[in-house]
Amino acid sequence: MANTFGHLFRITTWGESHGGGVGVVVDGCPPRLALSEDDIQPDLDRRRPGQSAIVTPRQESDTVQILSGVFEGRTLGTPICLWVRNTDARPEAYSEMAHKFRPSHADYTYFAKYGLRNWQGGGRSSARETIGRVAAGALAKKLLRERFGVEVLACVTQVHRLTAQVDWEKVTVQQIESNIVRCPDAAVAAKMIRLIEKMRAAGDSVGGLVGGVARGVPAGWGEPVFDKLEADLAKAMLSLPAAKGFDVGSGFGCVTMTGREHNDPFRVRGGKVRTTTNFSGGIQGGISNGEDIRFRVAFKPVATVMHEQATVDEALHNTTLKGRGRHDPCVLPRAVPIVEAMTALVLVDHALRQQAQCG
Amino acid sequence: MANTFGHLFRITTWGESHGGGVGVVVDGCPPRLALSEDDIQPDLDRRRPGQSAIVTPRQESDTVQILSGVFEGRTLGTPICLWVRNTDARPEAYSEMAHKFRPSHADYTYFAKYGLRNWQGGGRSSARETIGRVAAGALAKKLLRERFGVEVLACVTQVHRLTAQVDWEKVTVQQIESNIVRCPDAAVAAKMIRLIEKMRAAGDSVGGLVGGVARGVPAGWGEPVFDKLEADLAKAMLSLPAAKGFDVGSGFGCVTMTGREHNDPFRVRGGKVRTTTNFSGGIQGGISNGEDIRFRVAFKPVATVMHEQATVDEALHNTTLKGRGRHDPCVLPRAVPIVEAMTALVLVDHALRQQAQCG
Amino acid sequence: MANTFGHLFRITTWGESHGGGVGVVVDGCPPRLALSEDDIQPDLDRRRPGQSAIVTPRQESDTVQILSGVFEGRTLGTPICLWVRNTDARPEAYSEMAHKFRPSHADYTYFAKYGLRNWQGGGRSSARETIGRVAAGALAKKLLRERFGVEVLACVTQVHRLTAQVDWEKVTVQQIESNIVRCPDAAVAAKMIRLIEKMRAAGDSVGGLVGGVARGVPAGWGEPVFDKLEADLAKAMLSLPAAKGFDVGSGFGCVTMTGREHNDPFRVRGGKVRTTTNFSGGIQGGISNGEDIRFRVAFKPVATVMHEQATVDEALHNTTLKGRGRHDPCVLPRAVPIVEAMTALVLVDHALRQQAQCG
Amino acid sequence: MANTFGHLFRITTWGESHGGGVGVVVDGCPPRLALSEDDIQPDLDRRRPGQSAIVTPRQESDTVQILSGVFEGRTLGTPICLWVRNTDARPEAYSEMAHKFRPSHADYTYFAKYGLRNWQGGGRSSARETIGRVAAGALAKKLLRERFGVEVLACVTQVHRLTAQVDWEKVTVQQIESNIVRCPDAAVAAKMIRLIEKMRAAGDSVGGLVGGVARGVPAGWGEPVFDKLEADLAKAMLSLPAAKGFDVGSGFGCVTMTGREHNDPFRVRGGKVRTTTNFSGGIQGGISNGEDIRFRVAFKPVATVMHEQATVDEALHNTTLKGRGRHDPCVLPRAVPIVEAMTALVLVDHALRQQAQCG
Repeated sequence: MANTFGHLFRITTWGESHGGGVGVVVDGCPPRLALSEDDIQPDLDRRRPGQSAIVTPRQESDTVQILSGVFEGRTLGTPICLWVRNTDARPEAYSEMAHKFRPSHADYTYFAKYGLRNWQGGGRSSARETIGRVAAGALAKKLLRERFGVEVLACVTQVHRLTAQVDWEKVTVQQIESNIVRCPDAAVAAKMIRLIEKMRAAGDSVGGLVGGVARGVPAGWGEPVFDKLEADLAKAMLSLPAAKGFDVGSGFGCVTMTGREHNDPFRVRGGKVRTTTNFSGGIQGGISNGEDIRFRVAFKPVATVMHEQATVDEALHNTTLKGRGRHDPCVLPRAVPIVEAMTALVLVDHALRQQAQCG
Repeated sequence: MANTFGHLFRITTWGESHGGGVGVVVDGCPPRLALSEDDIQPDLDRRRPGQSAIVTPRQESDTVQILSGVFEGRTLGTPICLWVRNTDARPEAYSEMAHKFRPSHADYTYFAKYGLRNWQGGGRSSARETIGRVAAGALAKKLLRERFGVEVLACVTQVHRLTAQVDWEKVTVQQIESNIVRCPDAAVAAKMIRLIEKMRAAGDSVGGLVGGVARGVPAGWGEPVFDKLEADLAKAMLSLPAAKGFDVGSGFGCVTMTGREHNDPFRVRGGKVRTTTNFSGGIQGGISNGEDIRFRVAFKPVATVMHEQATVDEALHNTTLKGRGRHDPCVLPRAVPIVEAMTALVLVDHALRQQAQCG
Repeated sequence: MANTFGHLFRITTWGESHGGGVGVVVDGCPPRLALSEDDIQPDLDRRRPGQSAIVTPRQESDTVQILSGVFEGRTLGTPICLWVRNTDARPEAYSEMAHKFRPSHADYTYFAKYGLRNWQGGGRSSARETIGRVAAGALAKKLLRERFGVEVLACVTQVHRLTAQVDWEKVTVQQIESNIVRCPDAAVAAKMIRLIEKMRAAGDSVGGLVGGVARGVPAGWGEPVFDKLEADLAKAMLSLPAAKGFDVGSGFGCVTMTGREHNDPFRVRGGKVRTTTNFSGGIQGGISNGEDIRFRVAFKPVATVMHEQATVDEALHNTTLKGRGRHDPCVLPRAVPIVEAMTALVLVDHALRQQAQCG
Repeated sequence: MANTFGHLFRITTWGESHGGGVGVVVDGCPPRLALSEDDIQPDLDRRRPGQSAIVTPRQESDTVQILSGVFEGRTLGTPICLWVRNTDARPEAYSEMAHKFRPSHADYTYFAKYGLRNWQGGGRSSARETIGRVAAGALAKKLLRERFGVEVLACVTQVHRLTAQVDWEKVTVQQIESNIVRCPDAAVAAKMIRLIEKMRAAGDSVGGLVGGVARGVPAGWGEPVFDKLEADLAKAMLSLPAAKGFDVGSGFGCVTMTGREHNDPFRVRGGKVRTTTNFSGGIQGGISNGEDIRFRVAFKPVATVMHEQATVDEALHNTTLKGRGRHDPCVLPRAVPIVEAMTALVLVDHALRQQAQCG
C-alpha cells in the first residue's frame, strides 16, 4: 500500500531512477473524459530537469505514453497506466555511491530497511518518482477543472530570506510561469534567481516555501475525522521529497493570535454563507467552507552539495563524500507542478467521496 | 473509511459529544499483550476536561470500559472495542447553536456536507471524538514500549509568544506532568499558566505549539513514497481539531538554511550509523534513521470565545452569537496526550508493516 | 482490516460470545436516512437463537442499541455504532472446552494463530459475531429499498436431500417467514422441519442450501476485475460460519452445459436491454445487467453434535469430547437473515461506488 | 480500488486487449528475492493462447518485461511493474462488435456502467487481463516456495460429464503438464481432449471444473471474520472470467452430510495436531489447520460460439451476431495457471499478515 495514494481516485506509482522507467497507474478515473498525452506532457515539462538555468541539468525528455485506459481519446473508467521511459542512465556517475551513504539522502535508511538498495541515482528515492504523481495530477487537474470548476495553483513564495507578495485570489498561471523561479512577484523573483545562481556557483543549495491555492471548491468536500481535507493535504505534501513542513490558512502564524483575532466571521454574500477573513484557509472541521483553500509547504535545501562531507560506508567505516556531476541548487521551481499535482489528487478524491456518500 | 486510521494497527472511532457515548475499535492489535482499563484510564484523565484550572470545566469522568478483545487480562488478537459513556449531556446549553453557525467551528461545513448536523456540543466535531484516539493510543504506547523499546513523549513548547527550552534527548514524562500546562521548562510554564488565566478572565483564548519526540525507534521503519513516516505523522496531526501546521526536524526553519548547513553528517558511533546533527528529525526519505524523531504541531486559539461575534444562521440571515457556559482558553495542555496517542498509532502501524514486509 | 467489510459502506464488527457484548460500526452510511432500533431489531429477532423449536435454544433477547450516528431519528453521515449486550454468559458450561479442541470448530486454529483463545462459547468465532452483520445489513436493506428500489431476499432451498421449488421472480418475505424453516415451498418445508427434529432427537445435525435473490438492481453496478459483484458476494458468503460453497446463476450446473445452451440471448423489452434466460445470474463481467441477481450458499452441518468424538487437547494428548447442553441441529433457518444482510452490504457498497465513479 | 487485489502483497492490474499492453504492479513484495523474467515467463506460456490444439489460436508471444523493482537480480522491496506488450491487434476482426453486444459477454454491462467501451476484443474484460495476475502469481508462488515451503497446484478435474480421479496429496506439476488439457488422470484426459476437439468442430464450447490444492501451509494463516482464507479464495476465484462457483473441502457435498459424518476428528501425529479426514479443506474458522487446502472452481462454457445468436445493438434494436475468427472451445486448460496464481496471491498475502500481527 506504500506506493498507493487516494481512496477513490487512486494512484500507484512505480519505478526507479535507473531501469525500465517510471510510471503510475490511475484507478478510479471517471469515464468519458477526453484525454491524450497532450494533457499530461506540459506538466511533466514543468517538472523536468534541465528546463532552465537554475535547475538540475539532467537531460531527459520525460515523454509520457498512455498504455491503457483510454480509447478513441476518452477515458474508459478502467486503469490508466502512464509510462515515462528512463533514458539518461549513467550508472558509472554513481559508482562512489555504491558503497557510501550520501548525507541527508535516503541511502542509509533504504539499506537499513531492505538490506539492499538501488544506488544508481537514488533508485526509488529519486525525485524521478514524482513523474508519476505529476502525470496523474495533470489528469486530476483536468477533471477538477472540467467537471467541478475547481482551479489549483501553486508558486514559489520564499527562497531563503527572500519573500514574495502573492494575491491568492487573483494570481494566474501565466504570472507564475512568467519567470523560471515560478514566483509571480516579478521583483522578488529576479532576486531569487540571482540568489540561486550564486548558490550554484558556490556548490551549495537553498531552501524555501511553495504556497498553494484551490479556488472554486464548493462547501462540503472533506471528511470530519481522520481524512480531514487539511490532513490529506498534509500527508500529500510531507510525502514529497525534501518537504519538512506544512501549514494551512493562518498556519504557524496562529500561535501568536487570540481566538477573537483568529475567528473568521460568517456573513451572507451573494446568497451564500461566506467568511470575511480566511484564517481557516478554506477548511473548517476538515471540510471545505467554500472559501479559497490555502496552504504552504517548506522545502529543505537539496542535500547534494559540491563539497566534501563526512559520512560512512556500508562496511561501517567513517569516510567522506563529495557531490559531483549535476547539481540542483534549488528544488523549488520544479516543486511547483508537483505541489499542484498532489493538491489536485487530494481534491478529486474528496470530490468523488462526496458524490458517493452525499449523492 | 473517513473514521478509520492506520493499515495494520487500525482504529475506527465513533460517537458524538451527546448521545450514547464515544469509543474506538482497535483492529490488528497483536495477541497476548497484558491489557486492562488501568492501562488506558491515565491518558484519558490527562485528556479530560476539568482536570485543572486552565482547561475547559466540562465535568465528565470519562471512564473507559473494554467491551471486547481481551480475555483473562490479555489481548486476543481480535478487535478491541473501548467505550466511554457520555454523562454530561446538557442539550439545552446549546439551543442557540441549533440554528446559528459558530464561527471557525465545523457547524456550517457539516451542514453544507450532510444537510443536517448534531448541534449539541458540536456532535461528531467535538473534541470528545479524541477520546477514542487517546484510548487506542494508550494501547499503542504500551505495545511500543514493551515490544519495541520505543518511548513517545509530547509537551507544550510555546503559548502565544512564550517559548520554552526543551532538551528532547532527556525530557521525562515526570517533568512534563509537573505542572498543569504540561511544559517541562518550569519558569516558562509559570508564565504560560498566568497568560492562560488572563485569557480566561478576558473571555478569549490563545494558540501555541506542542512538540513531540519518539526515542528508540530503530532504523528502517517507514515507507519510501506516500506512507513516509513524516507524511503519516503530518496526516495524524492535521487530523486533530484546531491543528493548523506540522513540521519535522528543522521544519520551517529549513527555509533559511543552505544545504551545507542543513545536511546531517554520518558518523559511526557504538558500532552504529549515527548522525552528528538531527535536522532530519530522525527520518530520511520517509524511513527512520535511528535518531530521535522530532516534530511540532501548531494549534490555533480555541474558537469559542465569550464575546459577541458576527455569524449567520441556517436560514441565511446575518446574526451574532456569543459563546456561553464553559470556556476553554487554551487547548494545548489537553492536546499533549492526544499528540502522543497519534504519534504512537503511526509508529506501531509502521512497526507491524516492517514486520510484515521485511520479516 | 480483518474485521472490516466494504469500501464505501464499511462495517467493522467486534465482540466475543462472552464479554461486554457484540456490535458493529457502520462507516459511510449516507446522511438523512430515517433510522431507529425498530428498523434493526426485526432482523436480529430472525437471527436469534431460541426463536423456534428447530434452532439452538440459547436464550438471549439480543436487543440492539444505537450508540452513535443518529440524531433526531435520522442518520448523520457519521459512524453508527450498534451494540448488543451479552446476557447469557455461562462460562461453566464450557469448562471442558478450556483445554480440548472441538472438532471442525475454530478452537485449534485460533490457538495455533494467536497462542491463546477465548474458549467460552467459541469467543470471536461464535455465530454471535454475525449479530453485527445482521444489524448493519438491516440498515443496508433499508437504504437499498428506499434510495435505490432494490429488494433482497433469501430462503432455505435444500436440507439434506429435501429440495424446494422457489419462484425467484415472485417469492415474498411473507412466504419465506410463513414457517420456521424459512422455506417458501410449504410442502417441502414441513418435511424439512420433521427431518431437523429427527436430527435433534438423534443428537446430530444436517447441512443444506440457502438461495438468495436481489431484485431491482439496475444495470451497471459492480466492478470489472477483482471487485466483480459475484466475487464480492462470494467473499461475503464464504466469510459466514459453516459456509462451504457459493455459486451464481447457473453455478456448478454450468459444468455440464455447452456455450450454445448457456448463453443468455439479449432482447429489447420495455425499451430496455433484457435477457430471455438468466444463466448469468444477473451479472456479466462482474457488473449487473438489470436481471435478478441469483446465487446459492452451501452450509455444512453444525459441528457440535451430542456424541463422543475423537479430538486432542492443548497439551497434545489424544482425547474425546462430547457436545453437551444446547444443540443446534440445523443452522439454515437462522442463516437466512445473515445471507440477506451480507447481500445487502455488498450491493449498497457497489451502489455508492457507482455514484462515486460514474456520477 | 477495483483493480487492486490483496492487502500486504498487493497487485494492481491494468491494460486492455488492444492498446499499449497489459501489466501489473506488485506492491509489498519482500526484498532480496532473486527474480528475473525467467521466473515469470513459464507461467505466462501456460496461460498463452495458441499453446495447443484445444485452446484459442490467438498468436501472441506474451513476453514479460520487468520495468521496476528489481536490481542486480533481486527484488528491492519497491513496486515491481511487469508489462506484456500487445502485438496481435486486429481491430478490424471486431468491427461488428462495435455496435452489437455479444451474449453472455461483458459488452452490454460495461456500456451500461461507463457509457462507452473498448469493443476491440473485449477491452478490459478480455481474458488478457489475467496476464497480470499470472505474472504476479508466478512471483507469489516463488515466494511461497522459497520462504514458506508452500506448494500450490491446480488441474482440470472435470470437463462436461468427464470426471477425473486426482490424488491431491501426491499429484505433481509434471503429471498435470503431461497432457494439453492439464488433467493428471491420463485416461480421462484423453477423453476430455477428444470432447473438446468435437466441440471445436461443432463451433460450440464446454464448461468444467478446476481443482486446487496448497500443500505445506502451516496452521495459523488466515483471519477469523471477513478475511477468512476461504472467503479470500472465493473472491479470488469468482473474480476470474467465466467462473460461476467455488467450494472448499466437502463443498456443496456437505449439504447431504450430517454433523457426525462431516466432522474431522483431531489426532496427534508426528507431534502435531492433525485431522484424520479433511472435509474442512484445510481451513477451520477461516484459519489454516495445517492440512492440505483444497477447493474447486466451476467455469462456464466460453460465451463465444460460431453460431448465430439473438442479441441487441447499442441503438436498442434486436439483431443477431455470430462468433467468427478464433474460437476457444474450452477455457479450462488455460485457467489452470490462473487459478494457481490467484491461490498463491491469497496465501502470500496471509503469510505476510500473519508475520505482521503474530510476529
